[in-house]
Amino acid sequence: MNVQGKNYKTVWFKGTTVFLIEQNLLPFDFKIHESKTYKETCVAIKTMIVRGAGAIGATAGYAMAQAVLEAPADAFEEFILQAKNEIENTRPTAQNLFYATNRVYNNALISKEKAIEEAHKIADDDAMASKKIGEFGNSLIQNNIGILTHCNAGWLAFVDYGTALSPIYEAHQSAKNIFVYVDETRPRSQGARLTAWELYNENVPHAIIPDNAAAHYMQQGKIDMVITGADRIARNGDTANKIGTLEKAIAAHTFGIPFYVAAPFSTFDAACQSGKDIPIEERSMDEVLYQKGLDRNRKLHEILVASPGSGALNPAFDVTPAKYITGFITEKGIFTPNEIGKQFNHKTV
Amino acid sequence: MNVQGKNYKTVWFKGTTVFLIEQNLLPFDFKIHESKTYKETCVAIKTMIVRGAGAIGATAGYAMAQAVLEAPADAFEEFILQAKNEIENTRPTAQNLFYATNRVYNNALISKEKAIEEAHKIADDDAMASKKIGEFGNSLIQNNIGILTHCNAGWLAFVDYGTALSPIYEAHQSAKNIFVYVDETRPRSQGARLTAWELYNENVPHAIIPDNAAAHYMQQGKIDMVITGADRIARNGDTANKIGTLEKAIAAHTFGIPFYVAAPFSTFDAACQSGKDIPIEERSMDEVLYQKGLDRNRKLHEILVASPGSGALNPAFDVTPAKYITGFITEKGIFTPNEIGKQFNHKTV
Repeated sequence: MNVQGKNYKTVWFKGTTVFLIEQNLLPFDFKIHESKTYKETCVAIKTMIVRGAGAIGATAGYAMAQAVLEAPADAFEEFILQAKNEIENTRPTAQNLFYATNRVYNNALISKEKAIEEAHKIADDDAMASKKIGEFGNSLIQNNIGILTHCNAGWLAFVDYGTALSPIYEAHQSAKNIFVYVDETRPRSQGARLTAWELYNENVPHAIIPDNAAAHYMQQGKIDMVITGADRIARNGDTANKIGTLEKAIAAHTFGIPFYVAAPFSTFDAACQSGKDIPIEERSMDEVLYQKGLDRNRKLHEILVASPGSGALNPAFDVTPAKYITGFITEKGIFTPNEIGKQFNHKTV
Repeated sequence: MNVQGKNYKTVWFKGTTVFLIEQNLLPFDFKIHESKTYKETCVAIKTMIVRGAGAIGATAGYAMAQAVLEAPADAFEEFILQAKNEIENTRPTAQNLFYATNRVYNNALISKEKAIEEAHKIADDDAMASKKIGEFGNSLIQNNIGILTHCNAGWLAFVDYGTALSPIYEAHQSAKNIFVYVDETRPRSQGARLTAWELYNENVPHAIIPDNAAAHYMQQGKIDMVITGADRIARNGDTANKIGTLEKAIAAHTFGIPFYVAAPFSTFDAACQSGKDIPIEERSMDEVLYQKGLDRNRKLHEILVASPGSGALNPAFDVTPAKYITGFITEKGIFTPNEIGKQFNHKTV
């Protein structure tokens, strides 16, 4: 997608180097990080230079490809197995990571060329799935409407296009007149920082709103549909996503506004019967109490924004019951929560 | 109420001096501001050293009393009429201001003593109404429960006790075991800054939560009731309050959790038929895009917390339809939205 008028992906591989958009500098700085070795790529994943399920998966695949190219001929299998373990330990809860390392590793046992080809295929498949989500999602978007989105499920979290934002890009490119209400998404403000950054660079009309304002704009008839991403989707359609998604889904339901979850099939967890099986990560209270940003001289500060002495609670995500979800926008089409259950039966896990 | 273990009101009057808690320094600093003349008190109101309907009203009454004491004998009426106009122009949209200046002015035409007595009565009446709200509200609070509150409707906005927080203080003082979930209340963060500061000083167990987390804690069964304040209440019970109140009310309704609005009768606007008649103030987008706070060296900074180049929308409050409100906690008792309509018929406006 566009950054300052030039086309980028979040991650790409050339020669023996992995190139990454340095995401922990966004939205205040835009730099490309270069990892020359698989070990450097491991550090990049660990330090969150790259983030988001799809982008992490593709980067792990490329790290594995680097290891294949670095491996000495006399200890090839030993070297790449050791590398595989290292890569998998960078972010142990990221599912896509294991999927990617296994695919490249298995192909490396056939040939180096096959391994590199597979690493590229992982990245391309991710981009293609996102593109498909955009096309299917765009079929739901009318002309002249307001769309609410929560958190960042844009191209920065994947290789290209994104999930929740992909239909928005597709609609914008097909010359539909849309306006995007971007939830700030406290406490980490991924909406105000990343989604707004993406939409600004793609020239999509938008405004950041306080998380508190979503129901108000629904009541005023300004929001015609909601599209969010997902962290994990259970067999019954219950969906875990960034904290606040539940509140927006309830508000949308109350005002009769369609609420869509855009996600690739890799987000559906067949082992998970319902939302009750999804544990909620509690993160540091400092994310609520402190904020980072630039002063007028473009100097970065971290400041306390709450009353000193008070504590905070910081659940990272919540679970939206399937009954509040109008449909799932996937790379294979649009499904209701009921239909999703049947799709699981076809899915090999 | 308590500040660092000592008892305070937001405003008091001694000799010819008005004393005010300097609220624009909170929560990072606690200082008492002294206004020696009515003109200095006007500046204090204008620069928001004092804020909140009840506190502004009491301060305006005391400013009027100062004018009465300063007025020369040979041009008494002229002087106090001029002062009245000046005081009323400090914050022209604050209703309580006019009510207070008129009461003291009318008494000044009888005697200086009557005027000062009336100024004290205005402040005392405000504190007493808040205290009554606390007592009525406490009757609704069970032992061992979680209570959600939004924004700051605490004693800082009034002379003492507050509205939404008054029942919480009363419950805490009667040894009930309660835990208060404090909505951060972006964009101005009055929850994280003022409500948390009040509860910390009163030693009431509490935690700040991101505005996005309220529905999640309702779903988890952690929140048993919601109490908020109100900016304006229409005849049919529709209630304007800080942005985000609507979203919390909808979520509470969905989970079957009682939602109470605590407000003195002065907040009820008989001229307003329904929420549709309440205009919504749109404030500067900078309140969303920038945040103020202390760095680790206790130095104050204002920083950009969003993607540069993107705009924001900033509606100051929203309207919660009466159907989502379980009851109104007032100084005269607890009323359902239906009963409130009847109360209006008895009210002289």
